[in-house]
Amino acid sequence: MVRFIDPPVLPRGFQAAGRHIGLKEGENDLALFHSRRPCEAAGLLTRNHFPGAPIILARERLVEGRLQSVVVNAKVSNVATGEAGLEDARTMARWAGGEGGVDPGLVLVASTGVIGRRLPMELIQGGLKGMGDELDVDPWAAARGIMTTDTHPKVLTVQVGDARITAVGKGAGMVAPNMATMLVFIFTDAELPAEALDRALRRACRDSFQLLSIDTDTSTSDMVVIMANGEAGPVDGDRFQEGLDSLCMRMAELVARDGEGATKLLRVAVEGALDRPEARRVARSVVESPLVKTMAYGADPNVGRILMAVGKCVDCRIVPEAVDAWIQGQKVIEGGVRADFQEEEVRSLLSGDPVEMRISLGTGPGRATALGCDLTEGYIEENAAYASS
Amino acid sequence: MVRFIDPPVLPRGFQAAGRHIGLKEGENDLALFHSRRPCEAAGLLTRNHFPGAPIILARERLVEGRLQSVVVNAKVSNVATGEAGLEDARTMARWAGGEGGVDPGLVLVASTGVIGRRLPMELIQGGLKGMGDELDVDPWAAARGIMTTDTHPKVLTVQVGDARITAVGKGAGMVAPNMATMLVFIFTDAELPAEALDRALRRACRDSFQLLSIDTDTSTSDMVVIMANGEAGPVDGDRFQEGLDSLCMRMAELVARDGEGATKLLRVAVEGALDRPEARRVARSVVESPLVKTMAYGADPNVGRILMAVGKCVDCRIVPEAVDAWIQGQKVIEGGVRADFQEEEVRSLLSGDPVEMRISLGTGPGRATALGCDLTEGYIEENAAYASS
Repeated sequence: MVRFIDPPVLPRGFQAAGRHIGLKEGENDLALFHSRRPCEAAGLLTRNHFPGAPIILARERLVEGRLQSVVVNAKVSNVATGEAGLEDARTMARWAGGEGGVDPGLVLVASTGVIGRRLPMELIQGGLKGMGDELDVDPWAAARGIMTTDTHPKVLTVQVGDARITAVGKGAGMVAPNMATMLVFIFTDAELPAEALDRALRRACRDSFQLLSIDTDTSTSDMVVIMANGEAGPVDGDRFQEGLDSLCMRMAELVARDGEGATKLLRVAVEGALDRPEARRVARSVVESPLVKTMAYGADPNVGRILMAVGKCVDCRIVPEAVDAWIQGQKVIEGGVRADFQEEEVRSLLSGDPVEMRISLGTGPGRATALGCDLTEGYIEENAAYASS
Repeated sequence: MVRFIDPPVLPRGFQAAGRHIGLKEGENDLALFHSRRPCEAAGLLTRNHFPGAPIILARERLVEGRLQSVVVNAKVSNVATGEAGLEDARTMARWAGGEGGVDPGLVLVASTGVIGRRLPMELIQGGLKGMGDELDVDPWAAARGIMTTDTHPKVLTVQVGDARITAVGKGAGMVAPNMATMLVFIFTDAELPAEALDRALRRACRDSFQLLSIDTDTSTSDMVVIMANGEAGPVDGDRFQEGLDSLCMRMAELVARDGEGATKLLRVAVEGALDRPEARRVARSVVESPLVKTMAYGADPNVGRILMAVGKCVDCRIVPEAVDAWIQGQKVIEGGVRADFQEEEVRSLLSGDPVEMRISLGTGPGRATALGCDLTEGYIEENAAYASS
């Protein structure tokens, strides 16, 4: 049983600060996370072919598997800015390192916001100045500092033996506007080497962030990074994994639920697929389908759309007669055809949050659960009705 | 030079009729197309794993490569209805054949609408009665009869030598509501055997309907079928192909432009890809990206989203420094970074219709152009705010 701590706190030896430095109007837009000693570290970075300068820098840093600080700004993503942008990211790492007395090579930089614009370096230099003195065990100011259009800051903590694991994340947000960009920083005082962290993180992400889709658009700035400062000593590996799995899953749900314009979380569980990769493909196809998403939004019992979204996975093994599906436990598809159900009942089940769909393909042992959200006018408004400035 | 005929007409020997029989409120909902002699025929059918009964029947019919009539109803798609649904489709073919004195084995049936409901067979039987007497050379009543939420009927004719090719299509529509379902019936009086029609149709679809995406959801009822009655005698094969290519391309544009909620057509041309399959993948990624679609809708010069959508094709060969992009001829990306342009100018270019994006990847000879539309509140309204009934 994984124990979540409420309210969440930073693990021993970690501190954070958040500030409003004028990148965004009236909201925190800069965050600094700091460990009093160097950490073992690992991370998963976006696979987009146009990685931002912070991603390129992060790749270098993670080769060594050591980090001590993280500095994050909102509003400008420092993507598609070439060599000059990479130099800006390095400079930002140097300034942030200066605030905590940290080797710049141990500072991770993360930026989200508009693509193709240089960072306003003067603002950042001035904004960082003195931030080291504000470092505190309270994670909330920093959690607010990494937000874009998130409607609330996102921090979660699990207890694993004597150690804690805390995740600070931000999700589907826009600044000016921009793409749905996900950042998650995970801090722990457990003692683990970088390779073990890397393995544990990949496994925890596989069923959480790697199966989370707000709008199918993969950002150029996504990163999930874990840092372990060892202050709580060694922990049981299985229990650490279990805690990290739960932490990532719950953070992924928070991010999905707070997707742009979303009113509810969608969870699509597929079982009986040929194998796990096919289960993942089908689950993503359903959770990403605009017609399934609008069905969930409108609470309209148009359950044939589930079949459509399963069936459009043309390269997967689907035996129509073997397919069953449920919405919130109510069977809606049986043997590939509409089950006998009351439309009013399904309408009322679809009005809930989260909406849980279960799909059994009946062809093998593969299973996977994908996370997403409904599609609403709010998504359109946030992404079209803006003027970039 | 391909010659379109305006207004479009049916080729020699073809007739059509359309009726309102009470499936939809106050609009034509049944269509019959008829050739006075049997036609050579070919078709492309949806690859969705849950094909409707009409698709299953069409597969049988197209093995022989001969058709003489097409009967189409709106509102109920006869999908996921099992053996009974297939029997309904056969019965409908028999009734429709009776109206034109046509062998039921030469009647193609097409249905779109809600999934998982049986056809109202009594309505259809009564509705078809006497329709044979209304058959006429005017295609419009029938073109209206196949519409769902299309805002206008879609008919196009090209002249090829002495022959004509006429396409009647319907696009991204909803009934109760349902998925974006595309039907296109193509009639010609040119004389061509079924195998030649099949080859020509596949080639014409490759760069038109096969690169058209309204919302990424592949319907269970899609079909494009061509019928040739030979009344105009043989035609030059190259000119026929050229005419059919143009016809399919323009019909695909009509369908895209009339996508659910759409205010404009998007055309994304990719060149310099490693090969054609990669060009198609990148073009579809851009035209399907919700963030590119909302950018086009809001006329917001957030051109970094183009890079994002190119870059998320993680399995394609993308060399960031080699990527250039243009919007309506204005360069917006140069060597993988934002080009020097006036935001106001690009905003005004994005306000046009169609919006043309050109992307040069600089890595090979592959090229492809994908068609789509913008994403607006209208799409959400049509797909969520309905009550199914």
